Amino acid sequence: MKTRAAIAFEAGKPLEVMEVNLAGPKEGEVLVEIKATGICHTDEFTRSGEDPEGLFPAILGHEGAGVVVEVGAGVTSVRPGDHVIPLYTPECRECASCLSGKTNLCTRIRATQGQGLMPDGTSRFSLDDGTPIHHYMGCSTFSNFTVLPEIAVAKVRQDAPFDKICYIGCGVTTGIGAVINTAKVEIGAKAVVFGLGGIGLNVIQGLRLAGADMIIGVDLNDDKKEMAERFGMTHFINPKNVENVVQEIVEMTKTPFDQIGGADYSFDATGNVKVMRDALECTHRGWGVSVIIGVAPAGAEISTRPFQLVTGRVWKGTAFGGARGRTDVPRIVDWYMDGKIQIDPMITHTMPLADINKGFELMNKGESIRSVVLY
Amino acid sequence: MKTRAAIAFEAGKPLEVMEVNLAGPKEGEVLVEIKATGICHTDEFTRSGEDPEGLFPAILGHEGAGVVVEVGAGVTSVRPGDHVIPLYTPECRECASCLSGKTNLCTRIRATQGQGLMPDGTSRFSLDDGTPIHHYMGCSTFSNFTVLPEIAVAKVRQDAPFDKICYIGCGVTTGIGAVINTAKVEIGAKAVVFGLGGIGLNVIQGLRLAGADMIIGVDLNDDKKEMAERFGMTHFINPKNVENVVQEIVEMTKTPFDQIGGADYSFDATGNVKVMRDALECTHRGWGVSVIIGVAPAGAEISTRPFQLVTGRVWKGTAFGGARGRTDVPRIVDWYMDGKIQIDPMITHTMPLADINKGFELMNKGESIRSVVLY
Ligand SMILES: [Zn+2]
Ligand SMILES: [Zn+2]
Ligand SMILES: [Zn+2]
Ligand SMILES: [Zn+2]
Repeated sequence: MKTRAAIAFEAGKPLEVMEVNLAGPKEGEVLVEIKATGICHTDEFTRSGEDPEGLFPAILGHEGAGVVVEVGAGVTSVRPGDHVIPLYTPECRECASCLSGKTNLCTRIRATQGQGLMPDGTSRFSLDDGTPIHHYMGCSTFSNFTVLPEIAVAKVRQDAPFDKICYIGCGVTTGIGAVINTAKVEIGAKAVVFGLGGIGLNVIQGLRLAGADMIIGVDLNDDKKEMAERFGMTHFINPKNVENVVQEIVEMTKTPFDQIGGADYSFDATGNVKVMRDALECTHRGWGVSVIIGVAPAGAEISTRPFQLVTGRVWKGTAFGGARGRTDVPRIVDWYMDGKIQIDPMITHTMPLADINKGFELMNKGESIRSVVLY
Repeated sequence: MKTRAAIAFEAGKPLEVMEVNLAGPKEGEVLVEIKATGICHTDEFTRSGEDPEGLFPAILGHEGAGVVVEVGAGVTSVRPGDHVIPLYTPECRECASCLSGKTNLCTRIRATQGQGLMPDGTSRFSLDDGTPIHHYMGCSTFSNFTVLPEIAVAKVRQDAPFDKICYIGCGVTTGIGAVINTAKVEIGAKAVVFGLGGIGLNVIQGLRLAGADMIIGVDLNDDKKEMAERFGMTHFINPKNVENVVQEIVEMTKTPFDQIGGADYSFDATGNVKVMRDALECTHRGWGVSVIIGVAPAGAEISTRPFQLVTGRVWKGTAFGGARGRTDVPRIVDWYMDGKIQIDPMITHTMPLADINKGFELMNKGESIRSVVLY
């Protein structure tokens, strides 16, 4: 069949919207009509050429929502008409990782996914001259129709709006999951979030959901304050206005009883390795946990004195918020529908596929929280 | 009163054994007759001048066992005749750290302990000309008699031999506790220990106690293999004999079902920041936990790509094995007396206080596992 898609032909070039060929789903695969897709920094990381593992030509996009149109042989968990969210972190429920009960990083199709291919080692997308187009993160939601492995779709309720829940396919789950699954924040905790973009806002609402007492946001841009407060931020620090952000956080978190100070939990949503260090070092001696969410530039390294860890701080990271996609994503959709979390204020822009490059521009200029493409 | 002690007058100089003055215990303090004390790398770190926070003159030593001789006003938890192990990590059971239930790093007397003083801000030790001598790590076990805060002694059973259980005051608890309290290793785990000195051997026996399936030891010295096997090591790697120690560990830990590989837990007992990185990176994607035990040189930093953490590895550290001294140390003494752990083969040398510098030499040449001074 034919489908309209935005193609990344070359690193650093704008996407080109055109018709491409899409082969039907093979065994264990499903054909999904994407109804809406968010544009994420990770797409830009690859589009721009910064991602050393980026492959071209490719159909980017990994934050979508849509409807199953057709299923391949052997598919049992979804059927045509089901509403689904594509999962760049699949959940096969039978690999060593899934069965460990300790991680969401299913490895069943990791090798082929990293090569921009379906599990059988081929692509379903091609140009008219037969040139294959790479899949991206196993999703390629910048195509109106896409093929996905069955283990890479989460079946969700039918009354949830595609143009909002698509964001659960990446940013929402990453931010909330970092709090709930990775840090396991408990009621009454004091937490700090570095970077108040889309991920940071979702960390903040995760912290509110978890019952944190103090939710400190850190951002170089004062304009981020208002929105962050809407999501639950209780204190704001602009590092430009303080001498030392680590010391500032330590002071803010002291109590008459606890004169050591430090955050119980911190989250880096900036991708800046210097900020990651501050995020670790501002946590409480003895038990502070710092979670890295942001994607650092290729080759960048984090560092600290081992003393920081020996005195009880823990350094962790999270991918897709530690969420098991098929199990946890439908629950997060429920939370949205029940009003436990907000998504609407974060979808600042919508556009048709034809204008997708405008969405990238808005993101690069910092003018959007999330742009969503509506098919 | 007078007591014999080994004094560190100057960084880099041998200790001098002589009589010094010791004032009696003040409120909340106890006078202890030390019967035996181990010589530890941390003592050497300070003696040599490497420790930027080292104070002189001082009476070093922090790994002892002895008998309470006299108690100061208000002391209720021990009485004369009790057998005790001094604790460089005290346990007051009422500070914010102790009450958090999340850390063993009691902060009640941290400030004065760091200054080489008792909690009232003075020293009990002095030279005949009145010059005060610093306490060390709140213990100063290189003195036949010493004064300790009540919260810095663990009361232990009376039938346990001082010349063995003194080692529980540091190395044994640090190694075993890193496994049990910090990493919380579970039955069937695969673990790696970098550095097969005294701490490494105790990590190994902690892993055996915890029921680990694979206990891989890594050391540049093949001579360490035999003793490590006695304590439970199942596999040995000399990094000189393999191209890449991380890759070697990943391969060794693969199974037909799990083709990713990597250790479930790793422990650095070398203090080398490059090794600490290997220790992190050889752990399993998704859930590997790496624990830093070794003390790094002043100013040294650990580093890695954040990707290592984002893909599920956790970087931690441990001090005194995460053990709450007054609560956990008596249990470890019981384990020794019950034969659950071994100490005797690790005490390779004993000597009188007069020969204490010989103990430092043996340690620096790598000829001893532990030298113990018997008073
Ligand atoms: Zn994303
Ligand atoms: Zn799996
Ligand atoms: Zn020690
Ligand atoms: Zn305490």
